[in-house]
Amino acid sequence: MFMIKVGVNGYGVIGKRVAEAVSKQNDMKLVGIAKREPDYKAKVALRKKFDLYASEDLKKFEGSGVEVKGTLNDLLSKVDILVDCTPEEVGATNKQLYEKAGVKAIWQGGEEHELTNLSFNAYANYNKALGAKFVRVVSCNTTGLIRTLWPLHKEIGIKDVSAFLVRRAADPSETKKGPINAIEPELEMPSHHGPDVQTVVPDLKIETTAVKVPTTLMHLHNLKVKLSRPVTEKEILSVWQKYPRVMLVSGKDGIKTTAQIMEFAKDFGRERGDLYEIAVWNKIKVVGDLLYYFQAVHQESDVVPENVDAIRAMMNAEKDGSKSIEKTDKSLGIGV
Amino acid sequence: MFMIKVGVNGYGVIGKRVAEAVSKQNDMKLVGIAKREPDYKAKVALRKKFDLYASEDLKKFEGSGVEVKGTLNDLLSKVDILVDCTPEEVGATNKQLYEKAGVKAIWQGGEEHELTNLSFNAYANYNKALGAKFVRVVSCNTTGLIRTLWPLHKEIGIKDVSAFLVRRAADPSETKKGPINAIEPELEMPSHHGPDVQTVVPDLKIETTAVKVPTTLMHLHNLKVKLSRPVTEKEILSVWQKYPRVMLVSGKDGIKTTAQIMEFAKDFGRERGDLYEIAVWNKIKVVGDLLYYFQAVHQESDVVPENVDAIRAMMNAEKDGSKSIEKTDKSLGIGV
Amino acid sequence: MFMIKVGVNGYGVIGKRVAEAVSKQNDMKLVGIAKREPDYKAKVALRKKFDLYASEDLKKFEGSGVEVKGTLNDLLSKVDILVDCTPEEVGATNKQLYEKAGVKAIWQGGEEHELTNLSFNAYANYNKALGAKFVRVVSCNTTGLIRTLWPLHKEIGIKDVSAFLVRRAADPSETKKGPINAIEPELEMPSHHGPDVQTVVPDLKIETTAVKVPTTLMHLHNLKVKLSRPVTEKEILSVWQKYPRVMLVSGKDGIKTTAQIMEFAKDFGRERGDLYEIAVWNKIKVVGDLLYYFQAVHQESDVVPENVDAIRAMMNAEKDGSKSIEKTDKSLGIGV
Amino acid sequence: MFMIKVGVNGYGVIGKRVAEAVSKQNDMKLVGIAKREPDYKAKVALRKKFDLYASEDLKKFEGSGVEVKGTLNDLLSKVDILVDCTPEEVGATNKQLYEKAGVKAIWQGGEEHELTNLSFNAYANYNKALGAKFVRVVSCNTTGLIRTLWPLHKEIGIKDVSAFLVRRAADPSETKKGPINAIEPELEMPSHHGPDVQTVVPDLKIETTAVKVPTTLMHLHNLKVKLSRPVTEKEILSVWQKYPRVMLVSGKDGIKTTAQIMEFAKDFGRERGDLYEIAVWNKIKVVGDLLYYFQAVHQESDVVPENVDAIRAMMNAEKDGSKSIEKTDKSLGIGV
Repeated sequence: MFMIKVGVNGYGVIGKRVAEAVSKQNDMKLVGIAKREPDYKAKVALRKKFDLYASEDLKKFEGSGVEVKGTLNDLLSKVDILVDCTPEEVGATNKQLYEKAGVKAIWQGGEEHELTNLSFNAYANYNKALGAKFVRVVSCNTTGLIRTLWPLHKEIGIKDVSAFLVRRAADPSETKKGPINAIEPELEMPSHHGPDVQTVVPDLKIETTAVKVPTTLMHLHNLKVKLSRPVTEKEILSVWQKYPRVMLVSGKDGIKTTAQIMEFAKDFGRERGDLYEIAVWNKIKVVGDLLYYFQAVHQESDVVPENVDAIRAMMNAEKDGSKSIEKTDKSLGIGV
Repeated sequence: MFMIKVGVNGYGVIGKRVAEAVSKQNDMKLVGIAKREPDYKAKVALRKKFDLYASEDLKKFEGSGVEVKGTLNDLLSKVDILVDCTPEEVGATNKQLYEKAGVKAIWQGGEEHELTNLSFNAYANYNKALGAKFVRVVSCNTTGLIRTLWPLHKEIGIKDVSAFLVRRAADPSETKKGPINAIEPELEMPSHHGPDVQTVVPDLKIETTAVKVPTTLMHLHNLKVKLSRPVTEKEILSVWQKYPRVMLVSGKDGIKTTAQIMEFAKDFGRERGDLYEIAVWNKIKVVGDLLYYFQAVHQESDVVPENVDAIRAMMNAEKDGSKSIEKTDKSLGIGV
Repeated sequence: MFMIKVGVNGYGVIGKRVAEAVSKQNDMKLVGIAKREPDYKAKVALRKKFDLYASEDLKKFEGSGVEVKGTLNDLLSKVDILVDCTPEEVGATNKQLYEKAGVKAIWQGGEEHELTNLSFNAYANYNKALGAKFVRVVSCNTTGLIRTLWPLHKEIGIKDVSAFLVRRAADPSETKKGPINAIEPELEMPSHHGPDVQTVVPDLKIETTAVKVPTTLMHLHNLKVKLSRPVTEKEILSVWQKYPRVMLVSGKDGIKTTAQIMEFAKDFGRERGDLYEIAVWNKIKVVGDLLYYFQAVHQESDVVPENVDAIRAMMNAEKDGSKSIEKTDKSLGIGV
Repeated sequence: MFMIKVGVNGYGVIGKRVAEAVSKQNDMKLVGIAKREPDYKAKVALRKKFDLYASEDLKKFEGSGVEVKGTLNDLLSKVDILVDCTPEEVGATNKQLYEKAGVKAIWQGGEEHELTNLSFNAYANYNKALGAKFVRVVSCNTTGLIRTLWPLHKEIGIKDVSAFLVRRAADPSETKKGPINAIEPELEMPSHHGPDVQTVVPDLKIETTAVKVPTTLMHLHNLKVKLSRPVTEKEILSVWQKYPRVMLVSGKDGIKTTAQIMEFAKDFGRERGDLYEIAVWNKIKVVGDLLYYFQAVHQESDVVPENVDAIRAMMNAEKDGSKSIEKTDKSLGIGV
């Protein structure tokens, strides 16, 4: 079978997860990972039998005991597509490099929409990415919003959305970031997340505001959705149940905070205790055409299946989005 | 001059602040404080020359080195009015006791509105409390909402309000409460805070949702207000500037989180670094008749001036609310 | 092959991990788990095809959709040995029950040594547990201390140890515990951890003090060890390298805090991101016969392999401790 | 009366406190404060009627509404002595400037001992600073260690000290620093704090190790002191009671964590809720000649009285250290 040759540039929170997810697909081959430094993450990558390439300077790896197979350019010469998982605003500077190498590329949500003019979510616009050269997978928060809103928009119709985002201040391994004991409002109102959703679903009217709080586990969203017609709670829940990348959780079962959701994900046996799904508390509220709900977003992993689907679409390896999603989900244990 | 004789039952976060605020009024006399136990707070009270009374059992104080002047009943026999600052749901059980002693009483926002059928905020309904026997000062969050909304409602007119509350999970001295690293949504939607605002301002249409986050300093509110007509940012800010219990703060000045607000309050030289005012970031957003803003609420102290005004109203010591507010504010350094 | 029939009472932080570890042994069979309530953990257990039993009241499970196979007594009738993972001080009350059922039992470190008079660590005293009826696996902190000290004591000789324990205040899923922003000293000095080590290694002179800090990930220990003779850093590291349940980590590789250790464990692909090993920073300090080092303890999982070994010892299924340890380690991926 | 003319360079956590403390002395005059930027702290300084000077660029203050009286050089021309409270490692670069202006100067503990070759603590070496040109007041942690050790060393005699420091990761207003959820060991062992104590008390044998934890309130130290002879707990406590900059606190009174200590300080009515004293839990432990105790250090304020005393010593305004200390303590409410 034809295998898509994939490279990953950057092996941080997102990069390492995308690399592993790619390596689990039976129509893809992870050719290698480009990394700046021979730190513990590099050693873990070797342990997993991943090939490493130096993204900046080969010399950094000399004498480190971490073997590299060459430079980023060497990696580019061997792949069909590269997933750029370098830090925000670094990624954009690589575009010319990828272009020159004639390699397709995917960036993450830290970059601007304008870098690719094609922002992606598998449920919402898989088709648009078919054969595309450059794609941007939207950020964890934007992905979270689209995942639960798009099904409602498609099957019922949304008039407008008001969302409040309570963002985790740092990822678990980012120990230099604060605050330790404070709440920080995003004084720019509305926040950029609403327009970012619209880069994928242009006709969705949505307005967002946001704060940052001292926790590392998940983002939490509170949404108020005006639908095109009166609905029932049951109807809403049954829509979401058709979309495996949305997971309903229950406060009655003891899942009362983002910590219990992450515990639940660990109990599932997911690699790293990741939760690719957006968790929605099933205690939603409907008043006529108004819907209120809370959802939690695992910022480290929810975009991972989206990256896998973006690869398939861009390589024309699967024309039907729902089939790509199904493959990806099966490989990652989503909806099982 | 006639002095109102005031007792305080409970000497925790709110009780100690109310006691000190009362002792600073030149028309009130703090007769004493009822406490359950001879802990360090009792010792601090004695240091401040406050008289102590045993609220439960005199024996607890024997041999403790903390002198008490008698029991709660003894205190009740000496006061005109008692401010009940005992923990939530304990307060209600004291009502009969106060009634029997023929003493007026104030409760805090942890109690139900039905306990007194008169919920109080000095800006909004001072007059209703004139001569009243039993009054409930609404909670820190509810006070925070009324403080900034009532001026807008009075001077411009509010059609409806949507507010999202990011609540601090514990007070700084409550070290047994968590979570340490999680966000907890209030799954009951809308939350009780909206209806609680309406116990004071019945004609204000308001809907609230809430989460709890791992911080101890302040609550933070994000508000979206539909006004009766288009406004400008300048107009809104100038309304609030007339109300000293609302304080505008500036992100440009370096006040970016609740931590810097509390630092600012400490810099002011307020006792305990308290902030009686509701802090509103002056970077508000107006679109036509829609207003968006962030405010921060110092949960430990914003209700303190309200308690003082409630005492004056209930004792008919000042018929004009604005004059009571002015006295209280001057005594506490508000608006100076 | 003969299979040891094992039951687990309590399915919390430790119970669920012991259950899974037991189910991975090829000489043991997990018969079932006793649980109090049909919460999300119960549902996860069923997902894993574990049989559930009601530890308190069958009625709690009625209509919950969580099927149980009977009561704790039913479970006891089917097993050779029960691992009690109920909360601290609850466990002791079950002893009579197990005794009556003629079932061997293991308790966790929250119980007193006197409950079994046999406290266990596989490296240090496997032999003592051979055929034993009742055994107590010592706590996470005590296990952590023994894991790194016992090899030094055995191979070099320890004169005395002074250890300072910085304890995480709550497990990740315990969201009701604080403090959120404070440090709490254990005012009882020396702390109980030293004597607890001695329940397993009676001739080890050790003194401990402790504090609790607002984090959920790991305990951190600072140790100062007086050895029987001068040593070199290399010698110490090479001792530990022979013991797979001790893992050396490197600050130079980017592992600077407990957060990076846990990230490393997740990267490994361990179930739940657990770290069964005690992590020791390889930047140790030796001055003559004095050794200083830092180690980190994953409180949720380090005792899990110990429970597995205790089962084998008590059932006389493996007379040689090192062989049991090897089996357990292989099944859990330790030292791979 | 002769008034010492004092300037303060830097108006952060320490600078603002030193400025206020200086302004409370009846033998000193706060001439002005040099600041880099016109932020909210500048506005608070003006509110307090402090004169401001631009430490870097006058232009930064133009149009800001924050009036400055000139540049740092202008301030230097008006003062006898300058207290440098600029950030760590910035301070040293100012030395030439002060030297050129012929102004005495004090630096804080973030600078190296070698900058002044005179490290200061009022209890331990006031006399050494008499008439000195340049002095360094040691850091908050070092000050904390000296405060409780020096009295014991002087009155009983110390053979050696082993101290473990649990450091707060950030000050309350430093919201960019982490970690949010991790413990970070100081892998350099022993830590620099021991030698830093010896810059003030050269004959004190002391060894320290340290970790950083996610809290903002106080540092906490655990000390083990070998004394020159057997003592009793009572004797130790009575030594400390003679030194007002050491404050005994009691767990039995409800002071169980650093949070309750800070609450206690707020209750006292100290400006900003500061605690200039080192808080020692009175539950100490003595075994023969060995003493164990816990102390907490308010990192934001414990060095403030030391700066005031250093000014007096350097200006020869008070030859007797105990008299300077008494003056300072009275002005700040210490020991009242």
